[in-house]
Amino acid sequence: MTPTRELLRRDAAYDRWGEPGAGEGLGPAAEAMLRERIDPGEPCVSVPLEAVDVAPATVLPDAVVAACGGEDAVSTDDEDRIRHAAGKGYPDLIRMRSGRIESAPDAVLAPPDAAHVAATLAACADAGVAVVPFGGGTSVVGGVEPERGGFERLAALDLTALRAAAVDPVSMTARLGPGLRGPEAEALLNSEGFTLGHFPQSYRYATIGGYAATRSAGQASSGYGRFDDLVTEVELTSPSGTLRTLETPHTAAGPSLRELVLGSEGVLGVITDVGVRVRPLPDRRRYEGWFAPGFGEGIDIVRDLAQGGELPDVVRLSDREETRVSLAMSGIEGIKRSGLDTYLRLRRRSDGCMLIVGWEGERDAVERRRQLTTGMLRARGAVPLGASAGESWERGRFEGPHLRDVLIDHGILVETLETAHAYARLVELYAAVGDALAGAIGSGGGRGVVMCHVSHVYRDGASLYFTFLTAARTGSEIEQWRELKGAACEAIVATGGTITHHHAVGRDHVPYMEPEVGALGLDVLRAAKERLDPAGIMNPGKLLK
Amino acid sequence: MTPTRELLRRDAAYDRWGEPGAGEGLGPAAEAMLRERIDPGEPCVSVPLEAVDVAPATVLPDAVVAACGGEDAVSTDDEDRIRHAAGKGYPDLIRMRSGRIESAPDAVLAPPDAAHVAATLAACADAGVAVVPFGGGTSVVGGVEPERGGFERLAALDLTALRAAAVDPVSMTARLGPGLRGPEAEALLNSEGFTLGHFPQSYRYATIGGYAATRSAGQASSGYGRFDDLVTEVELTSPSGTLRTLETPHTAAGPSLRELVLGSEGVLGVITDVGVRVRPLPDRRRYEGWFAPGFGEGIDIVRDLAQGGELPDVVRLSDREETRVSLAMSGIEGIKRSGLDTYLRLRRRSDGCMLIVGWEGERDAVERRRQLTTGMLRARGAVPLGASAGESWERGRFEGPHLRDVLIDHGILVETLETAHAYARLVELYAAVGDALAGAIGSGGGRGVVMCHVSHVYRDGASLYFTFLTAARTGSEIEQWRELKGAACEAIVATGGTITHHHAVGRDHVPYMEPEVGALGLDVLRAAKERLDPAGIMNPGKLLK
Repeated sequence: MTPTRELLRRDAAYDRWGEPGAGEGLGPAAEAMLRERIDPGEPCVSVPLEAVDVAPATVLPDAVVAACGGEDAVSTDDEDRIRHAAGKGYPDLIRMRSGRIESAPDAVLAPPDAAHVAATLAACADAGVAVVPFGGGTSVVGGVEPERGGFERLAALDLTALRAAAVDPVSMTARLGPGLRGPEAEALLNSEGFTLGHFPQSYRYATIGGYAATRSAGQASSGYGRFDDLVTEVELTSPSGTLRTLETPHTAAGPSLRELVLGSEGVLGVITDVGVRVRPLPDRRRYEGWFAPGFGEGIDIVRDLAQGGELPDVVRLSDREETRVSLAMSGIEGIKRSGLDTYLRLRRRSDGCMLIVGWEGERDAVERRRQLTTGMLRARGAVPLGASAGESWERGRFEGPHLRDVLIDHGILVETLETAHAYARLVELYAAVGDALAGAIGSGGGRGVVMCHVSHVYRDGASLYFTFLTAARTGSEIEQWRELKGAACEAIVATGGTITHHHAVGRDHVPYMEPEVGALGLDVLRAAKERLDPAGIMNPGKLLK
Repeated sequence: MTPTRELLRRDAAYDRWGEPGAGEGLGPAAEAMLRERIDPGEPCVSVPLEAVDVAPATVLPDAVVAACGGEDAVSTDDEDRIRHAAGKGYPDLIRMRSGRIESAPDAVLAPPDAAHVAATLAACADAGVAVVPFGGGTSVVGGVEPERGGFERLAALDLTALRAAAVDPVSMTARLGPGLRGPEAEALLNSEGFTLGHFPQSYRYATIGGYAATRSAGQASSGYGRFDDLVTEVELTSPSGTLRTLETPHTAAGPSLRELVLGSEGVLGVITDVGVRVRPLPDRRRYEGWFAPGFGEGIDIVRDLAQGGELPDVVRLSDREETRVSLAMSGIEGIKRSGLDTYLRLRRRSDGCMLIVGWEGERDAVERRRQLTTGMLRARGAVPLGASAGESWERGRFEGPHLRDVLIDHGILVETLETAHAYARLVELYAAVGDALAGAIGSGGGRGVVMCHVSHVYRDGASLYFTFLTAARTGSEIEQWRELKGAACEAIVATGGTITHHHAVGRDHVPYMEPEVGALGLDVLRAAKERLDPAGIMNPGKLLK
């Protein structure tokens, strides 16, 4: 049998989102837009992996190595340690590129199954070894930061080997191992005629365990539901033992322990098995572009769709800025840019907002739902851009993080953050966060772009996803990032929005958990942690402090 | 201002489900069915309320009375104490009818608002007074049982005065006080053009706080969602302080504290405010009856509807026994019984199972959805009984508990219980519980009726709701009930079903919480309780032991 440490993945770049060379470069239109809107930054190049400065590893106790499955299940290779030393947030990439990472795990543990996870956690608790559970490593909020929490030794616990899968076609459920990446899980399900329907932007690398631990939301969340909506049962392996919820469509047996495990971000234990609802593989997918008169009007439109029960499976509404930038960066294939301008001007939508809508499922149902929604879109003043705009979105749906790599290469600070609120306060939240980001960029003396979209729509409210760009301050990018991120978070908290709709808390949002759940709420979460992880070894510094 | 103790409700009978004289008697067909199927029992009459044997009250500490709002907010009247001494389960009604209640609260507290609830709980924790939160008092699982948990004094904390309401028409949400009964909340929402859409059988008396504390499910749960699905935010007032979750459509900020408060059944504190999603008041409601070829075939049909995304808002599938008994008890108005027999025989559905389906909403949408579903029902071999059968169900939808009163009058032990499972094991669970109940009735030497329906349908599984009847053993009804209930619960646990889909845990299901969530799961819930209720005064003996 292959030693599990040889399963550890090295296919993505250590200092970028994806595999080296992935993604498309900036076209001339995008280059021009950047020159026009943003002060030029200094190109940002990476040190080679061999030159990354990593402290020597402290040796883990033999009992930990034995519990994990022996030497075959443990790597102390520097490349593996570096690859498990950060997630994929902007500060993570900057640290990797500079070659100055603050900390790295002393070893990467690759237990072959849940029983070895349990033994490993017990041994680590005994020996005082901190543990960072590691799935796809795609956290953008410092969720896999190798913080030691006062312990001398730290291990990353990589779930790659836990990739079992079993489908129940009658109940339309599946049990999936936490180490399965999005495309791996999807391929397994597709081969039996099903889909999970969960496509976050991190899809190519993120894992089932990570989806569950962070309450991920996919691009088709309006149709399929957020990941936490899909979960029917879950197993948490903690230092105190294993907690498993029943396989049942619903229960009234007390507070939901499933909902305590979901979102627990590795601080209570390791998610070692996930049961999910799956759907029949759609025989039809249709995505379309529309132009709404404005962002506020667009929000009213998607609200009407949601509240009327006619929500498409994919809904994405860009504000004016994101619409302009998207068109400048990529255009819409199939519609000549100049022709589009004329078309929109004639329809008085030159200043409008791009709305992507999409349906997936059985052919007749897609067509029926599409007709209902599009009739309503026309009635509310939206104008169609046709399927080509939708297909253009579809082709680029996982490309955002690759584009971020290219922008960072160009010396640009680029970051995203997200929140959500009830409709009654959504526009207020949009303005507050946008103003805070623009103000922080301006007070740093720079120019920039702040843009936003709505991509997760509910009956009572929606998410807001912000992207902001400005020239990076070379050498102090992380301080600069902290100022901008902090300004946005303060604005979110002041307006009563949630600090995170789907990126999770990680390390970056820890200071905002008290406004989110209150001091007593934090205390209750800490009480649960003390029971499951009395030694406090699990993912120090994340979620709760 | 009216003293809040004068708000305490006395409109339902203390020894029956509803107001005295409510509900219809048994018709001659039902009488005949009972004579044919069940051994005759001795008529069961009640002692008058004045003759109920209630122990003298221990006086509550002055500090508790003051914290609650003074004498105006406290009743020590025997009638109020008796009315707060039990829920509405079969054993509760038997005890009340016999006049021998085991325990009653020493006083009924009626705090005027959440601030007084907080002060009261703090004072009770200081003074060592156990507290049973009390909403509609409709628990059928011993959820409001006045257990003292080792404390000398016990108060019922009645939420009747907490009836504030505020609608946000933009977000289509409402904040509702926990003391609002179903029809009160519905009238408030209806006056602004909305509905909660939550209609459990307990609707006439149960309260918003109770729905949240027990994870109630309504008869239209397939369309509107279970009550826990409707909740957007919640406030829990505990002896340690107040925990409030954010008003946000969704969040990834850690484990869900909302889902910890939902289903907490008063053991963590008192739910003092509930935010819910509401819907536009439907301009069309349509319910229909159908006949499925059999129960297994009927389950396959509702599963197909759910998994195909074409589920009606109301779905209720009776097994053969419930179908036969329903027809015998009430017939279907508008279809002459003899004509129905001929109709079904011609279509080879004489031995079929009644399926009620219903749609609510905007007129066109109802018609569109109805056509899709009924086309599919026909294709799967179901035969239509028309709207009159649906209307007959609608008229009787809240009558079950009144009928129970009449059956108890006739000396019949009648009880319901419910569970749920994934589709792959639903028929196995149905057989196991049905056999266990039939076996227990038979080994007691009696004859009886055991019947079942599916009334909450999900993509991955469904609930099973059992009703069973046999002659009561006069004088030892509760022991007899315990044997039957225990046999059913053991069968549920052995088959991996949940011990409760929507009745909650209360006192009756406490022994089955360990198979449900495991020893570690129980430990985690206890850790949360210790943080929120360190003195252990909240609802002793319920949910956790």
